[in-house]
Amino acid sequence: MKTGKAELVCTGSELLGGKLNLYVPPFHERLAPLGFTITREQSCGDSLPVIRDALAGALKRADLVIACGGLGPTFDDLTRQAAAAALGRRLYHSKSCAQILSFNFKLKKLPPNLTDQCLLLEGAKPLENTNGTAFGQVLTRGRKMLVLLPGPRKEWEPMFPNFLDAELKSFFGLPPLAQVKLRAAGLWETQAEKLLRPVMRRFPLAAYTILAGPGTVDFILSGDDGKGMIGRAAAAAGKALGAALYGEGEATLAGAAGAKLKALGRTLAAAESCTGGLAAKLITDVPGSSAYFLGGAVAYSDRAKKKLLGVKPGTLKQNGAVSAGCAREMAAGARKVFGSDYAFSVTGIAGPDGGTAEKPAGLVFFGLAGPRGASVFRRRFRGGRSFVRDCAANFILDELRKIIK
Amino acid sequence: MKTGKAELVCTGSELLGGKLNLYVPPFHERLAPLGFTITREQSCGDSLPVIRDALAGALKRADLVIACGGLGPTFDDLTRQAAAAALGRRLYHSKSCAQILSFNFKLKKLPPNLTDQCLLLEGAKPLENTNGTAFGQVLTRGRKMLVLLPGPRKEWEPMFPNFLDAELKSFFGLPPLAQVKLRAAGLWETQAEKLLRPVMRRFPLAAYTILAGPGTVDFILSGDDGKGMIGRAAAAAGKALGAALYGEGEATLAGAAGAKLKALGRTLAAAESCTGGLAAKLITDVPGSSAYFLGGAVAYSDRAKKKLLGVKPGTLKQNGAVSAGCAREMAAGARKVFGSDYAFSVTGIAGPDGGTAEKPAGLVFFGLAGPRGASVFRRRFRGGRSFVRDCAANFILDELRKIIK
Repeated sequence: MKTGKAELVCTGSELLGGKLNLYVPPFHERLAPLGFTITREQSCGDSLPVIRDALAGALKRADLVIACGGLGPTFDDLTRQAAAAALGRRLYHSKSCAQILSFNFKLKKLPPNLTDQCLLLEGAKPLENTNGTAFGQVLTRGRKMLVLLPGPRKEWEPMFPNFLDAELKSFFGLPPLAQVKLRAAGLWETQAEKLLRPVMRRFPLAAYTILAGPGTVDFILSGDDGKGMIGRAAAAAGKALGAALYGEGEATLAGAAGAKLKALGRTLAAAESCTGGLAAKLITDVPGSSAYFLGGAVAYSDRAKKKLLGVKPGTLKQNGAVSAGCAREMAAGARKVFGSDYAFSVTGIAGPDGGTAEKPAGLVFFGLAGPRGASVFRRRFRGGRSFVRDCAANFILDELRKIIK
Repeated sequence: MKTGKAELVCTGSELLGGKLNLYVPPFHERLAPLGFTITREQSCGDSLPVIRDALAGALKRADLVIACGGLGPTFDDLTRQAAAAALGRRLYHSKSCAQILSFNFKLKKLPPNLTDQCLLLEGAKPLENTNGTAFGQVLTRGRKMLVLLPGPRKEWEPMFPNFLDAELKSFFGLPPLAQVKLRAAGLWETQAEKLLRPVMRRFPLAAYTILAGPGTVDFILSGDDGKGMIGRAAAAAGKALGAALYGEGEATLAGAAGAKLKALGRTLAAAESCTGGLAAKLITDVPGSSAYFLGGAVAYSDRAKKKLLGVKPGTLKQNGAVSAGCAREMAAGARKVFGSDYAFSVTGIAGPDGGTAEKPAGLVFFGLAGPRGASVFRRRFRGGRSFVRDCAANFILDELRKIIK
């Protein structure tokens, strides 16, 4: 099958100085449906010769080169100049770009830093930026294409549906690489691999990746979908994962639970101690969650547990806040005070401090209350504070998703 | 100043197919104290010619080249072969490596996949792996060094204190690089640049990076600290940033506010609507936050605003939930119900839906109540749902930090 070779050149000294490079996965997701495999990624500091050299190398090897970052208005934004040097083309000041910026910002005269953003590579098409001032640029040379994109994801990502998808399709005309991401929770990576191994053997033409998260496992199938193979393999994998499967693609646990609540016209409330608002944050990350999420109590102190959620003083005294009894009363209290159909609770020791031999860091109790009764869970997560909190939030959202009926 | 140039070559098709590359920040942390700047990073799929080409390019440019990943026992582990091809050296079977593995695994005869792990580059020193079976390798050629490391962090990281720190110090003998990250909030990237430009002119020897976040700006200074230059430049930059500066290094807005609360023995509560638990989550990300954070109410529904926080029905009826009056009553209510010294509130329209001409998506009201009175803020953030929520949470944490006295 015909696959396009794409290379990424990511610029920014921060990418080599302590900040995670978050570019590659979303570019992979954007480019695979357009028929491209990313064959190499280079991260460069804010140095003109380094970026120029990286672009020149990539242009020799790949069909499509995407440079991201370095189009901003400050001194360390050098990608335009580096691309001009790599291609041996000059930069010119685009009047139409200047007019667009003048119009958008209601300015008669552009300040110098905005004027710089109107520099285009000779022969390049500008891409409008709906969330910022830096234009993207597309330039073709022979059978190759160079694309310059601004760094922030909210600036470059809309350029795909708005311009680049059509541009790349018409210039390269590649068959899409199909990709399905199955999302599962409540099992370990090794358990998932065991369940999925027969599927991988049965459909050997696809490429497979298993990615573990905090209490979650993603299974990614990719390849040419000429004969519907990816779809059949995904169906078999979904069957193998069973109830652990909560969605596909960008589905989230909170979204899966929310969709069930919405479909049934049911409502939800949360009572959190050690997750401290994280579970509510994940629920409200979902647009439209106000249709079913009534609210939550972050009951960090004992007083808040008693006053907001009606936890009995005796329960706290006898069993402590990290206990099955407290979790049960927190969930029941949240259901009552918010007047919701379902409510859950999380109370535990996120760590690193606060653990004892009897109740170590990572120990978490959960309550779940619904129209058909209540249940309590106890789990021990091993890892740092944020890992324990992520695992705890994912665990209860997964249990919630499973009981909503 | 003398700085070593290091390049990383990260291997693994998953790094180009959806998985985040987590290698670079920890390598930066390991290499900066040894005097190295990472000048380029390349991610390559599991392809022998691609890895060979990436290594050959890196060896031409850099003093130190570190290849990570691809030393495992499976068919797609190709780094040893690629390094041999890039250097024009052969691989040989090391008897001492085989003895170490035989001893560690109590095996008389090694299986073929473990035998492959005993292949060393001609002239290379093996690095023992205390958490796995793949040996690291160090090879010098002239004034350059190539290091091959296994992919999992728990396998390669101990090789630094155990072997590599000493090896790199004795071979290169470079002075350590200093780096200071100043963190500021409540100003734009371009405002920060204007404030900082005189500092950058005054101390031209350091390298500077400005990074914008949602309502935040980081300013990173790095270079040789031989004459205390980085420290003096950082002090000048901090002065230029003034009250916008909230910390250094890994400081967070929530941590900065928390430290002030802790020092004064004051307590805090939160009342959130559109941020849906995000602000409480950021506060409780800080270990030990239970010392001052009593809790929060995620009051998504009107009922919750009234019942948990005592917002007056008339306020909601006349002004709606997204209003200065509601924000004021939410903050006052949270302060009362949690019994805290300080409380803040956030109520707005995170979007993408729910906006009107009068109250567009991104409009947020904030309340802040403390021992010395209360205040209300109104802001409009432009961007997607998560950007609006991040900006809103950062805005109120920054205002909180500033008023605590």
